Amino acid sequence: MADEMIVNCLPLTEEERERCRSAAPSVRQEFVGDPKHRADMIWPCHVPQELRESATAIIGNVPIDEVKECKNLKWLQTFSAGVNTYVGEGILAKGAKLSGASGAYGQAVGEHMFAMMWTLLKNIQLYRDNQSKHLWQDEGPVSTPDEVKVLVLGTGDIGSHFAVLSKAVGCYTAGVRRNASQPAPGIDDMHGFDELESLLPHADVIAMSLPSTPDTKHLINRHTLSLMKSNAIVLNVGRGDAIDADALAAALHDRTIQAAGLDVTEPEPLPEDHPLWSEPHCLITPHVAGGSHLEATGRKVIGIVVENLKRYANHQPLLNEA
Amino acid sequence: MADEMIVNCLPLTEEERERCRSAAPSVRQEFVGDPKHRADMIWPCHVPQELRESATAIIGNVPIDEVKECKNLKWLQTFSAGVNTYVGEGILAKGAKLSGASGAYGQAVGEHMFAMMWTLLKNIQLYRDNQSKHLWQDEGPVSTPDEVKVLVLGTGDIGSHFAVLSKAVGCYTAGVRRNASQPAPGIDDMHGFDELESLLPHADVIAMSLPSTPDTKHLINRHTLSLMKSNAIVLNVGRGDAIDADALAAALHDRTIQAAGLDVTEPEPLPEDHPLWSEPHCLITPHVAGGSHLEATGRKVIGIVVENLKRYANHQPLLNEA
Repeated sequence: MADEMIVNCLPLTEEERERCRSAAPSVRQEFVGDPKHRADMIWPCHVPQELRESATAIIGNVPIDEVKECKNLKWLQTFSAGVNTYVGEGILAKGAKLSGASGAYGQAVGEHMFAMMWTLLKNIQLYRDNQSKHLWQDEGPVSTPDEVKVLVLGTGDIGSHFAVLSKAVGCYTAGVRRNASQPAPGIDDMHGFDELESLLPHADVIAMSLPSTPDTKHLINRHTLSLMKSNAIVLNVGRGDAIDADALAAALHDRTIQAAGLDVTEPEPLPEDHPLWSEPHCLITPHVAGGSHLEATGRKVIGIVVENLKRYANHQPLLNEA
Repeated sequence: MADEMIVNCLPLTEEERERCRSAAPSVRQEFVGDPKHRADMIWPCHVPQELRESATAIIGNVPIDEVKECKNLKWLQTFSAGVNTYVGEGILAKGAKLSGASGAYGQAVGEHMFAMMWTLLKNIQLYRDNQSKHLWQDEGPVSTPDEVKVLVLGTGDIGSHFAVLSKAVGCYTAGVRRNASQPAPGIDDMHGFDELESLLPHADVIAMSLPSTPDTKHLINRHTLSLMKSNAIVLNVGRGDAIDADALAAALHDRTIQAAGLDVTEPEPLPEDHPLWSEPHCLITPHVAGGSHLEATGRKVIGIVVENLKRYANHQPLLNEA
């Protein structure tokens, strides 16, 4: 494959570059990433000007403008799970393949959601507020995940990882997905979205990792919040617009539900004057559950990349091809 | 048992009182607790003046002065796990039995420790600090419990419960207890205290639920802290004096360890000007992991009480007899 050149923009160690070379020994590979960016939330990726003409494959989420200049591109592999940015007329060269890193983020995001659940179950966010005032003060009853019902909305990589963790500590899990006949690891009972309203009144935890689609927009709203138990905890690590933020703020303020843990909001960043910031039982993290903050995520991304380099060099179908 | 009278001071529901009556139908029982105190951190227990003379058994942690007035007492059952308060000359009537509620608190305290671990692994306490300033700001890399080594110091009911949870989410567990030949649920490898210094350099999480004894005082000190990994997380839900608080504050300040989660401190309450309050990676809760804040704890205490009422009425050896 003499005319081929892969530009790998990931922040790889020398050992990882060697793994990439070994996966596709017949193809020239240029490594332009800097390992010092390894723990950055988003890996910065750029194809140097002088390589754009000859690049036939790119590994990494490079800016669209740079991709457009790669006229001979045959393959783009992102480090992100989603590849939507690169779909559309005039971005990729005609016929170029596009593949993502689905499967690399479930652990990091599922664990973050699980950590938010435990924080809220034990009122630890209230004790942290007290700590900032050097205040030694009891904040009352707490909950356990043991034998409670967790309803997982969106049972892909993330929701499924969360469900497995939750089951491991004693929860009963139910899931909601578009195709209810398709099972998922960690989910005891799978349901369709048409059953949501009959499921919500029985859920102690509602764990959301839904994509942003017209169907999921404001799925949790004033009405669906009104169906929840007074001890319900709502978690969202998918897309912010799946929850009507004003309705959630009202439900928390009126204590019609127990708590919420949000890694995503609508809009982002959450405006400084939004009421959710000040709700004691609302825990907010700034869309940090994913990205590359967990070392294992980077390793999984690279594992997918190495496998796809092998497949690319051998003209086999790619993993996660869009 | 015509001369016997049990004064039950616990905040029981009518249904629970009936369970107690059924457990010892031959003995007169007076119920003086109020169920409205059920979720109080400490259940208030008192034997009314007019019942002290005739009380032959008391259920509940009543003040020592009241116990001393119960001259005909044959049995005191506490709701607390420990019974030390009532040991000593002149407190209980001669020959009176004393039994505690060991086993009722492991879930609540072990879960609280587990929640603190997850909060610290994911930097959630830092995001809560940002939230109080309405600040949407990334706080960098996080950790996972998956495949990390947890060292459990004190492997009784609490440490063991924590170990079971930790193993369920992927941790390797080692334990340290006085008698290393005695296994405990959730602990992969058990060691004696003489091995502590060789174990600390390999532990990612050090989870402490030790009683306060001369042997455990300042077990974690400047020297033992210096043996820990830079990513080590220290958790303490046992007794505050097992850690030299000044040495811990210095280690956190110098970032020679990663984080600490403390439900107990030395002294308690932690003085308002103590440096630990202000360490970003130190999470403090005010000795609230135990008590009766978790509903399951109350149910377990009552389960032990019911069993011991049966045994008392049938002249059998009591559970948890001191």
